[in-house]
Parts: sequence; structure tokens; C-alpha cells
Amino acid sequence: MNDNLCADRPTFVTHLECSMTGERYEADRLHGLSQAGRPLLVRYDLDAVKAALAKDALAARETDLWRWRELLPVRRTENIVSLGEIETPLIPVPRSGGANVLVKDEGRLPTGSFKARGLVMAVAMAKELGVTRIAMPTNGNAGAALAAYASRCGIETIVFCPEDTPEVNVREIAVQGARVWRVNGLIDDCGAIVGKGAAEGRWFDLSTLKEPYRIEGKKTMGLELAAQGGWRLPDAIFYPTGGGTGLIGMWKAFDELEKLGWIGPERPRMYAVQASGCAPIVKAFDDGVEHAERWENAHTVAAGIRVPRAVGDFLILRAVRESGGKALAVDDADTLRAVADCARDDGLLLCPEGGATLAAYRNALATGEVDAGERVVLFNCATGLKYPMPEAPNWLTVPRRSTSTRCDG
Amino acid sequence: MNDNLCADRPTFVTHLECSMTGERYEADRLHGLSQAGRPLLVRYDLDAVKAALAKDALAARETDLWRWRELLPVRRTENIVSLGEIETPLIPVPRSGGANVLVKDEGRLPTGSFKARGLVMAVAMAKELGVTRIAMPTNGNAGAALAAYASRCGIETIVFCPEDTPEVNVREIAVQGARVWRVNGLIDDCGAIVGKGAAEGRWFDLSTLKEPYRIEGKKTMGLELAAQGGWRLPDAIFYPTGGGTGLIGMWKAFDELEKLGWIGPERPRMYAVQASGCAPIVKAFDDGVEHAERWENAHTVAAGIRVPRAVGDFLILRAVRESGGKALAVDDADTLRAVADCARDDGLLLCPEGGATLAAYRNALATGEVDAGERVVLFNCATGLKYPMPEAPNWLTVPRRSTSTRCDG
Repeated sequence: MNDNLCADRPTFVTHLECSMTGERYEADRLHGLSQAGRPLLVRYDLDAVKAALAKDALAARETDLWRWRELLPVRRTENIVSLGEIETPLIPVPRSGGANVLVKDEGRLPTGSFKARGLVMAVAMAKELGVTRIAMPTNGNAGAALAAYASRCGIETIVFCPEDTPEVNVREIAVQGARVWRVNGLIDDCGAIVGKGAAEGRWFDLSTLKEPYRIEGKKTMGLELAAQGGWRLPDAIFYPTGGGTGLIGMWKAFDELEKLGWIGPERPRMYAVQASGCAPIVKAFDDGVEHAERWENAHTVAAGIRVPRAVGDFLILRAVRESGGKALAVDDADTLRAVADCARDDGLLLCPEGGATLAAYRNALATGEVDAGERVVLFNCATGLKYPMPEAPNWLTVPRRSTSTRCDG
Repeated sequence: MNDNLCADRPTFVTHLECSMTGERYEADRLHGLSQAGRPLLVRYDLDAVKAALAKDALAARETDLWRWRELLPVRRTENIVSLGEIETPLIPVPRSGGANVLVKDEGRLPTGSFKARGLVMAVAMAKELGVTRIAMPTNGNAGAALAAYASRCGIETIVFCPEDTPEVNVREIAVQGARVWRVNGLIDDCGAIVGKGAAEGRWFDLSTLKEPYRIEGKKTMGLELAAQGGWRLPDAIFYPTGGGTGLIGMWKAFDELEKLGWIGPERPRMYAVQASGCAPIVKAFDDGVEHAERWENAHTVAAGIRVPRAVGDFLILRAVRESGGKALAVDDADTLRAVADCARDDGLLLCPEGGATLAAYRNALATGEVDAGERVVLFNCATGLKYPMPEAPNWLTVPRRSTSTRCDG
């Protein structure tokens, strides 16, 4: 029914390369990190893509993630695993944000978060490369997305999450067919367990940026933004930054689009948003260094960005600096106020991480870092429904009507 | 950015008419039920629509709900209130359903349910017609959608829900700016309170089918199905039926599309799915009568279809019978098993009401009511994330790594 999922299309991956050293790796083979212990980036023959795919042909396709097939790594159509990866809408938030502020609502994706973008690609590639058992650490949403896609194509999955991961996330992972273990630590503690098991050959390690394909899925956020804006990018992007795959991915997407000649050299300022209680990238940005130190005693209501250490730290910092943006920390109180304001005044229930981007935008507006006239996109990375909401303050019990009364309600 | 939301387009409403008597009512005025106490249906000058809108022009538009503007009642573009009403994806469920079974995943709409379709239209029309205060009974999802849209355009909202409505729904309604009251009764008890207040002039009553526009929003499910199928409808539709607005709306949509010449006279068999613990439409269907009696002691895990009495009962029954379909009741145990199977085997977490349609399909397949070769669409009316999930059965606490160990996770 959806031609993007059925039609065979040419693919253009030439090789992979180390994001640090540029060392070249063969495509179509299973890879983790590079020899230098850094993420691998997928490279395409973009001249050939340019010859094969016209903007008009792209415009005529259905708008889901798989319309970008020529810029994605999956070779064989039969390996595409899909749960309906729609193009996510851009929603104005005029009252809580401003007249030129749009929220990209990633909560509309399968399993309710932008993790679906990365995991649909990683799982499809795992399938293509013959993986039968996957393990991954998660703060919740990534595990849910992995479980859904892996179950759908019969790959066995084991997920490790911090012990205080909300019950809804743990249950969602389990009902979608994965084995889920709670670990009395943070996400990098979980990552250590996954890494150890992978080294012992017990499973394939699908941690953020430790395999090369999640970033290719996440880069579709940048591709979509360009297409939705009529090939004009926003002036600034506020992105909730934990592992940072999405920010790195969008930056890569913009480069690829420029090489295709579909956009010019202009770039949005990229703002990496973190919580004051876990802000390793902000500290590294402010210190002017290329790598971030692990953040000790990390705490924030925005669990998705409670990532004490990111393997792609230097890639995040590089993109933010090249773009003329900044790394910004926001207090949880401001985040929660932003969530409440946006729901009450604009009818849009953000997740806390999305709320953090709105809070960061409002701070940036106050300090003059952004101008109210600039076109801004905030990323709401998940549906607000997965998160605790304040108690309804004003309910009461009303006397019941007599059950003998009939009504037509 | 989305032309559907900005471009002025001609509108074609001619009048409204009583669904029972055919009595004519003026358009562009505030209406509740007809004089006969029945729902009003909106009528259009379909010959004029045919002359004004070509299939090709429609295909070139963005695919959201507002692409159907010529078949919708809102006159002035400024009254459109939107939170990104995307076209919902059709997702195959080959393992838990069958090779020809698609789930229309309505959980991707704003506030996570298909209620957004009806309420976005009802609120836009309330705005267009000058309403400033709305009240409504709800089992949860409708109230959330109302709160979001009404808050977004500054209309005051009061919502009444049964006392056992899940906490997540009550809180969602409240954070989105509505006043929400719990009532120690069922939805028709809540409806009685709303009706009484409306009669006293305290608010406008937005109950299902008691105002004419929710059905116009819901009919877009039928319009989308036709467009997504290349103007060929499925052989059968399984629809979770409480108030039944969606089923009635789709049936109306198919008629309008036939009058436009976009589809032929073929129709899907419409299956109205209810829970064994609350099956008034099924009883009326089996009894061969036109109206349903109130179902006493209603109970089911699928709260959205726990509707003891529907004001549009005769419209539901008429559509089901004309289509050659049936009204089917399913046990909660089968519903829960269908939810579990679909999540585990197809990676798609249905809501209980969506699970009921899968259970009904499987029963219908077993009895020969449908054939495995027939193209079937099941409606998943909300995201499964709003509902209780079983406890994760297989988690354990893993000993924490020494905090002195460094990892790059």
C-alpha cells in the first residue's frame, strides 16, 4: 500500500569511516566502534544519489521515513521493518513559546518517541547483516523501540535499564517481547553490562553510536525539517541532548543535502539542551574542550537526557560550535514550568525533555541569544503521556443521579 | 508551512438535517439535537464540490485531516484549530492478525486517540459559532482531546468522567487546561449532568452526536481509508463501538465519496465491536430491532466502549445492516490476549478497544464470517500507552559495577 515499503530502490552506501581518524571500513559487514574506539559514520556516493533522485520524485513519494531510502543504508527491501514511521508534524506554540516557534512532535512515532527513528534503522541493518540476538542499555524509550522492531522481525532482545526507570517504560519493553533487566545504576552502568556481554559473544551491542546505523535513522529528522521548510532550514534548533545521536545525525543530514545541491551552506544554530543536574556537554562547551568528563551524581526529571557520558561527545560539541550555537543547561523547575505552560496554553503535552528545550528557548530569548523574529524548532522527543503528570487539582465527586432516571447520554 | 492550514478554500455546507425525520436545519447556527431528539447530519452541495475539487488536486495536498476541507464544515480558515492531525498509518499485523490485516493506528493523533478527529472539528465550529464555554462527558480520551483544542483557542472547558477513569486520563485533561470532575457513575450519568447544565444555559453541550460536527471530523477516517487504498475500500472494517460516531461517520464519508464519483457502490462490511460486558448494539442487532436498550451493570477492561446507551444507536445499526456486517461481542479475556499477542509478535501495542477488534476478527475468522484472503482494517483507536500494562514478568536486579570502573556508555 505504501510504495516506500515495497518498491526496490537503488542504494548508495560506499563505506563507513571512523568519526575521529577517518579510517575506512567496509560496508555490508557488522561493525561496532572503530579501532580508535569511536563511532563509525556511513558514507554514500552522493554524486550518484544526485543523478538518481530528483527533488520532484522525492516530493511525489509518501512522506514517511522510508521516502529517504537513497540516503539510508538498508540494501534489500525485504529487510525493511516498519511500524509506520510517519513524518512528524511541526506544531506552533504561540502562547508558551512565541510566534515563530514550532515544536517537532516526535511523540507521534511508533512506541511514542524519536528513538523509533534510530532503532528502526539499526534493527533493519541487524536483520540484513544476520544478527539474531541484540542487547542494549536504555533509559526507557530506546528499549521500547528496540523491543517493538526486533520482535516484529524475530530478533531476540535483552534490555538493561536503570532501576528507577518508570514502570510504564519497563512494562512496555516487556509486553513488546524483550527481556528487560533493571540495574541499580545509571545508563552507563547498564552500558557496561551490555559491553561485557558483547565482548563475550553473547549478543550484539546496539548502544547509541556503538553501532553505525542508529545515527542514519536519526538523521531523517534533519532531512524532514529541510523538506517541511521547503528546503529552507530554521534559524535555530533546540535539541534535548543525552547521547546526542539526533543532533549529530541532523548535522550530517544537512551536509549530505548540501552536497546534493538541495540546500545551501546556511545552517541553523544548534543548541544542545541539557539539565543542570546532568550537563557534561555544557561543561565541556563552556570549558572549550573537545571531550566531556563523566558527570557524577546525575539527576533530573528529564530521564532521557540523564546521560552522564556520551561516546559521541566530540561530535556533538563539534556540530554545536560549527553551527554558532551553544550547549545550554536548564533547571528542572523551569522545565516543569514549560511543560505546564505549553499544555495549559497551547494544548500540547510535551515530555520533560521537550519541556527542557522550551525552557532553554525562553532563557535564550531573555538573554538575547535568540531573537523573537527568528524561526525556531524545538524537539519534543516523546509523547508526554509516558511521564508522570501533576495530580488533577480540581476534581470533586458529584452526587450520582438516581439510577431509575433515564437519559440518552 | 502547511498549506492546508493557511490557504482559504471554498466550503460547501448547504444545511443540516435530522437523521431520523430528514427535517431541515439552517447551517452556520448553533445546534444540538433535532426537534425529534436525534443527531443532526451536515449536508454539502456535492455537485459543487465535484466541480471545485479534482482528485489530483487533493493528492497534491499534504495528507493531514485538513486536506479534506471541501468536505468539512469550517468556513473560515482563521477558525481552524490544529495540533497536527496527521493521516494515520496502516500497519500490517501478519502474526497476530493475518497476511491481509491492517491496523489503522489512531493513537498517533494529537492527545493519542481518534477522539482528536471529532473534537478538532467540534471545537473549530464552536469557535466559529461564538461558543465560549463547553462541557462534555467522557471516558477519558474525548475529554483530553477537547481540553487540548479548547485551551488552544481560549474556550473554557468543563469535563465530567466516571469515577474509575484512569488517573492518567484525568490528569491529562487537567494539565491541558480543563476543569475535570469525577462522577460516581457511568458516562451516561455524566451526560445527564452536562445536559442539565446546558438546559440551564451554563455551557454548550458537546456530547457525542449531540452536536453535529464531531461526526464530520470522525468521517475523515473513511476518507483517509479510501485515499490510502487508492480509492478502493477494504472488504471489512472492524470498529470498536461505544457511541459509534466513527462508524456512522465513515458510512457517511463513503456515501459522499460515491456521490463525488471517487468510489463506486461497493462497501466494506462494517463490524461494530463491543465487549461482552457492555453490548447494547450487539443485543439490538441480534434482536433485529432499530434501537438499543440501556445496558445495565456495564463492565469491561475496554473503558472506551463502556457506553451503556448511544444516542446514535439506530444510525450504527442501520450502517452495519446495510453493509452486510454484524455487531459482535468479545470477552475481555480474548481482548487482553489479542493485545498481548499483537505487542509480542507484531511489536504493536494496541489499546484494549483496538485489541477488541483484533479479538473479534480472530473469532470471525474462526466462524467463517470473514475469509483469510479478505482485506481487513482494524481500528486501534488510541495509543496503548494510556492503559495499564501487565507487570514485566522477568526483571531482576543485577549487581552494580564498581563505581570506580570507567566505561564509555
